[in-house]
Amino acid sequence: MATSRILRPLAVIAGVGNATGTGAATARLLSKHGYSVALIARGAGSLRDLADEIKDAGGEAEPFPIPEYAPDAISDAFSAIRNKFPSPSADVNGRPLRVAIFNAAQGVFKPFLDVTPQDVRETLDVNVTTAFTFARESILDFKRNDIADGKRGTIIFTGATAALRGNVMTSVFAAGKHGQRALSQSLAKEFGKDNIHVAHTIIDGQILTDRTRSYNDAASNWETNADVRLSPESIASAYLYLVNQDRSAWTWELDLRPAHEKW
Amino acid sequence: MATSRILRPLAVIAGVGNATGTGAATARLLSKHGYSVALIARGAGSLRDLADEIKDAGGEAEPFPIPEYAPDAISDAFSAIRNKFPSPSADVNGRPLRVAIFNAAQGVFKPFLDVTPQDVRETLDVNVTTAFTFARESILDFKRNDIADGKRGTIIFTGATAALRGNVMTSVFAAGKHGQRALSQSLAKEFGKDNIHVAHTIIDGQILTDRTRSYNDAASNWETNADVRLSPESIASAYLYLVNQDRSAWTWELDLRPAHEKW
Amino acid sequence: MATSRILRPLAVIAGVGNATGTGAATARLLSKHGYSVALIARGAGSLRDLADEIKDAGGEAEPFPIPEYAPDAISDAFSAIRNKFPSPSADVNGRPLRVAIFNAAQGVFKPFLDVTPQDVRETLDVNVTTAFTFARESILDFKRNDIADGKRGTIIFTGATAALRGNVMTSVFAAGKHGQRALSQSLAKEFGKDNIHVAHTIIDGQILTDRTRSYNDAASNWETNADVRLSPESIASAYLYLVNQDRSAWTWELDLRPAHEKW
Amino acid sequence: MATSRILRPLAVIAGVGNATGTGAATARLLSKHGYSVALIARGAGSLRDLADEIKDAGGEAEPFPIPEYAPDAISDAFSAIRNKFPSPSADVNGRPLRVAIFNAAQGVFKPFLDVTPQDVRETLDVNVTTAFTFARESILDFKRNDIADGKRGTIIFTGATAALRGNVMTSVFAAGKHGQRALSQSLAKEFGKDNIHVAHTIIDGQILTDRTRSYNDAASNWETNADVRLSPESIASAYLYLVNQDRSAWTWELDLRPAHEKW
Repeated sequence: MATSRILRPLAVIAGVGNATGTGAATARLLSKHGYSVALIARGAGSLRDLADEIKDAGGEAEPFPIPEYAPDAISDAFSAIRNKFPSPSADVNGRPLRVAIFNAAQGVFKPFLDVTPQDVRETLDVNVTTAFTFARESILDFKRNDIADGKRGTIIFTGATAALRGNVMTSVFAAGKHGQRALSQSLAKEFGKDNIHVAHTIIDGQILTDRTRSYNDAASNWETNADVRLSPESIASAYLYLVNQDRSAWTWELDLRPAHEKW
Repeated sequence: MATSRILRPLAVIAGVGNATGTGAATARLLSKHGYSVALIARGAGSLRDLADEIKDAGGEAEPFPIPEYAPDAISDAFSAIRNKFPSPSADVNGRPLRVAIFNAAQGVFKPFLDVTPQDVRETLDVNVTTAFTFARESILDFKRNDIADGKRGTIIFTGATAALRGNVMTSVFAAGKHGQRALSQSLAKEFGKDNIHVAHTIIDGQILTDRTRSYNDAASNWETNADVRLSPESIASAYLYLVNQDRSAWTWELDLRPAHEKW
Repeated sequence: MATSRILRPLAVIAGVGNATGTGAATARLLSKHGYSVALIARGAGSLRDLADEIKDAGGEAEPFPIPEYAPDAISDAFSAIRNKFPSPSADVNGRPLRVAIFNAAQGVFKPFLDVTPQDVRETLDVNVTTAFTFARESILDFKRNDIADGKRGTIIFTGATAALRGNVMTSVFAAGKHGQRALSQSLAKEFGKDNIHVAHTIIDGQILTDRTRSYNDAASNWETNADVRLSPESIASAYLYLVNQDRSAWTWELDLRPAHEKW
Repeated sequence: MATSRILRPLAVIAGVGNATGTGAATARLLSKHGYSVALIARGAGSLRDLADEIKDAGGEAEPFPIPEYAPDAISDAFSAIRNKFPSPSADVNGRPLRVAIFNAAQGVFKPFLDVTPQDVRETLDVNVTTAFTFARESILDFKRNDIADGKRGTIIFTGATAALRGNVMTSVFAAGKHGQRALSQSLAKEFGKDNIHVAHTIIDGQILTDRTRSYNDAASNWETNADVRLSPESIASAYLYLVNQDRSAWTWELDLRPAHEKW
């Protein structure tokens, strides 16, 4: 019966990593707010665990592991996602893609003279070329959505300070992040008129994840001191806010940093 | 009795204008979310009407009309506000100032050779010098607040495209808005360590108010088309989001524009 | 006799200070390149000495001391300059104004809570309002010049890092410098079509002057180490380059910093 | 005999194209100022013609054609250059590399949905990855130079408006140019302390070349009107100025646009 139909919107989140960071927090939060979530990462194990966790909490989530962040792998993942979550026009229980988060990142941090062309190409391939494909697949799906509520879909790119400034040791990472930021601005300008919202965030500080926790001295209180590092959950709240912005006032870019960050 | 105490936080909003724009929408929204609101504007009449409207809706609001946007007038208004809403440390029914919105703006738009020193001084006095005093009075109050929840207070400045770029016809306005933006960044850097959050918004488009409504051709559908102009309510939502950001991820600056804006 | 006529162009330089910094170095360099120089500063003594020095070296220079950097004082100085150096259309030995350098600056550097409205107003008056008047007087003169060689005149504003970023302790100075930068951009956009060139420099480092020499430890070799501080002469060279840029490729903004500056 | 030795400095210029644009104009100007020039482009014919022209005018120039702008091709070209122009430490008639201009650029201009991963990769490979290799090879040579005069060498990257802003139709090009700009800033910060100067230019307008001449209507006077388009020679003058900046005041970035450009 039609009454059994639950028309959840779908969110695709690429860059879930080991499920302790921004991507995973965003997945959990969007699930709580009624989104089905399609999760993309390279590690199948933690991806499945996160999907299970979200389903156990009453959500709808599916893992789409990929071998690497590359255009073909992303396109394959979107094919699999469309298969699993067909468009509502094709299936009465379909899921319209409404949110796409590109949180994947790669970078090497070396003195410039140690950088190899391979370092540059790999970094650009993840941060820029793959981001292009991710955006393309998302926009193709968004274009099928109605604009009844003013927004066909939202893409958010997770940027960093290195998207605004190059620095010693960051030549490669900054090149990738600058390129991705340029992409996000071009998209925002080209697709605003189609009621597709594109946003870019500047994460200016260290995010609390399993990895950063291990870098920082336990004695320094870093982990428990929310004044000095970003919580993935706080970033996820920013993403939810961006997703919910109505058509009359969209943000392309915002910065996020802990209260005590020096900048 | 202690049980009758309602510890509402206080929000001061300067630049309420004729109560049809961003300042008024922010006052209404903050009131709905539990804030007492102290309203500052030059027009006593519309200010009183707005306060009445908010009180009729169950809120707590007081008008503080000022003769002009100038440092002394702002300091006087804060004195009156502190009298009306004493600090909780001084009065069991006091109101701790938690939010300060500086939405006042003045600008002349002329060919450069028509600009007079008077034009420049008046514009700078409202947009910069008065903003300094507004920030100072707010921060002095914030410093009395506890930081139990991570944030002693939030100041938001309403900026504009002219805060980022000068242009033909905007030499005076852009000078004022650039100056105010510089202030906001200095404050964000100086007071972050004190858990005081300072934000600046770039309003990149025309806001729907009584005045802009009269400029735009009714036939063009401008007023009813949320794709082409900003709703004060959408900006207010952005401000509420900024106010609620937790200490681990604060935004200094975000832009807001309608979906179809060309930029 | 007509053959005795020397049609030197005129350069007005405001902000010559004690004649040991950027303004004086620019005056000397422009004089060497055939400009008559009109020198504006608050100190009559050092101004006269600089004019004498330039005249002794075979140049043409006149001091125009002003009591303070304020719109009226600047307008008075321009009247005196026009009297001393009439337009070539009015006098066969006249001097067409071709270059205007605004190098005056004022700033207070204090914790924000120590800043007074007086501090803000004075700083804005020098850095912004007076800059408006200086630009206006210059452009009025430029407009009388022919554009045979593609450029009626050049205005250069001496900016600073604080024109791009506010910071702890720089709230007032940054507000003024941001405002002046906005002015320069508005002018560049409005008057480019009239073949008037407006430029803005970002001086990102300490300039070697009598004053900075006294601040820096002699033992540190600061004065003699051109890798760590800016020479006024190097800045003057940049200004001469800007003045000589031909109409097909004008620079609005460039940064200048010592080789070893950290940024 | 030692007396026959002419110690010309060497300039490497990549991106000479068909020898009618910025690269060629810079080669001619640097030759006039005493530099030997090593010319890199993909077209062997026009490259040889330019080298011959410079030699006929009394200069020293050699063509180094490459099959494509790619890291290996650039490294091969530098090997050939070092062979032809050995270091002065290795050969009494050697040429110390002092200037390196990266003027190569590639871009596709398409609606975003028509962009392929191949488009993105090729653009990034020329504008970013190849620029990394070009900078690396240059810096390795610069490091062998003395710093007697304060500067071991200068690298200049030719940037564009797209290095600052993404826009409709420029998603790919802007990503590449943003990436290259980030590289240039990282290099400037890392190698300033080694007295290596890195600069980036923002070319904001159309440059007069054989190609742009053919695009623009002859009737519009575009070609002969220096107010509306950039002359390669004017850009070359800017590059010479940057090369000659002394260590106390280096520019990282400047913009260049015609007098009447709207921006």
